[in-house]
Amino acid sequence: MDLKDKKVPEVVIRRLSRYYRYLDELDKDGKTRISSTALSKKMGVTASQIRQDFNYFGGFGQQGYGYNVQYLLAELKKLLGITNGYRLVIVGAGNLGHAIANYGGLKKRGFKLLGIFDNDKEKIGKKVGNIEISDISKIKDFISENKIDIAILTLPKDATEEVAEMLMDSGVRGFWNFSYTELKSKNEVFVENVHLTDSLMTLSFKISQNRL
Amino acid sequence: MDLKDKKVPEVVIRRLSRYYRYLDELDKDGKTRISSTALSKKMGVTASQIRQDFNYFGGFGQQGYGYNVQYLLAELKKLLGITNGYRLVIVGAGNLGHAIANYGGLKKRGFKLLGIFDNDKEKIGKKVGNIEISDISKIKDFISENKIDIAILTLPKDATEEVAEMLMDSGVRGFWNFSYTELKSKNEVFVENVHLTDSLMTLSFKISQNRL
Repeated sequence: MDLKDKKVPEVVIRRLSRYYRYLDELDKDGKTRISSTALSKKMGVTASQIRQDFNYFGGFGQQGYGYNVQYLLAELKKLLGITNGYRLVIVGAGNLGHAIANYGGLKKRGFKLLGIFDNDKEKIGKKVGNIEISDISKIKDFISENKIDIAILTLPKDATEEVAEMLMDSGVRGFWNFSYTELKSKNEVFVENVHLTDSLMTLSFKISQNRL
Repeated sequence: MDLKDKKVPEVVIRRLSRYYRYLDELDKDGKTRISSTALSKKMGVTASQIRQDFNYFGGFGQQGYGYNVQYLLAELKKLLGITNGYRLVIVGAGNLGHAIANYGGLKKRGFKLLGIFDNDKEKIGKKVGNIEISDISKIKDFISENKIDIAILTLPKDATEEVAEMLMDSGVRGFWNFSYTELKSKNEVFVENVHLTDSLMTLSFKISQNRL
């Protein structure tokens, strides 16, 4: 499917992974069909919104009969790059780095975690799952030898920009950035800056307003 | 400010914590004024969107002169409940629980982390920062004695719903849920379900489409 000519809105892209999660559950439950109404209820968006979203990608099947769960799931997997087996490294072997490395969802989504790096001598050589933590000084060669696509950054804020530049030069095309700093997407390099506390603040806002 | 009569759209609520982050940076840099144009550039939304957002909360100052950074920041802090000093516990003392407990941003946003709970005998009694990990069997009394507002859940999926029900009965009014399960907000209880991999899938989608 060639989407080059169609600009998919950011908000639609962000819904794709939610569709994927719901369809994956349905698939696990052995369901083979879902109506747009039922999917809409699960997702909390209107059925017409779902049809609009799917129209960016060719529609994914007939409305009258509902959607074929396995077909839709397979298409979503292709779109989301799950079938591409992207290759990852984690930079920063702190608690968050460990948590991400141990998270089964990565493998399930086709990602291949190949390396974990840190500059702390106490950590280098220790294992996370079956991956040994390596010295950050070796990351450049590792990136190019192993054709790493995505780097997960769980670094102190001040180190992030410099490390990201180096990795970009070595060929990394995506950054999943947990450091408290805003990296910018540029040219063919994509960035997702994760600000965990944003959702906590949303929660806090709601509790706070409710008590007024 | 009474917002009870105005329904603030979810997307606006979610932008508030971003406004907060940017304003906080400006404040740290010693800035006292920012024009709506400059703020709009930083946020990546239009100046008119910013004015619309702020109008839900009374406007926050004159356009001609720009916004007063410290005033706006103080108002955002109030809105986001940062000034309320909400009291937290973490349930689940794995890597992610540790990462969150050690994250300085919690304290900065006024949150008070008072307890960490687990059912793993190996973990109980150990310290995270200056908080001792407690036996989950003691959590009910702890919640009511310490007037806990928010529980952060980093639990295995299967245990989550049951634990959440128990905590709700004990008076918890907010859940920041990292478990791979969808808790539902109900009555006066608010939930933020965090699906970390959603943003990774967004990244993966973009890399994938770019390579087509």
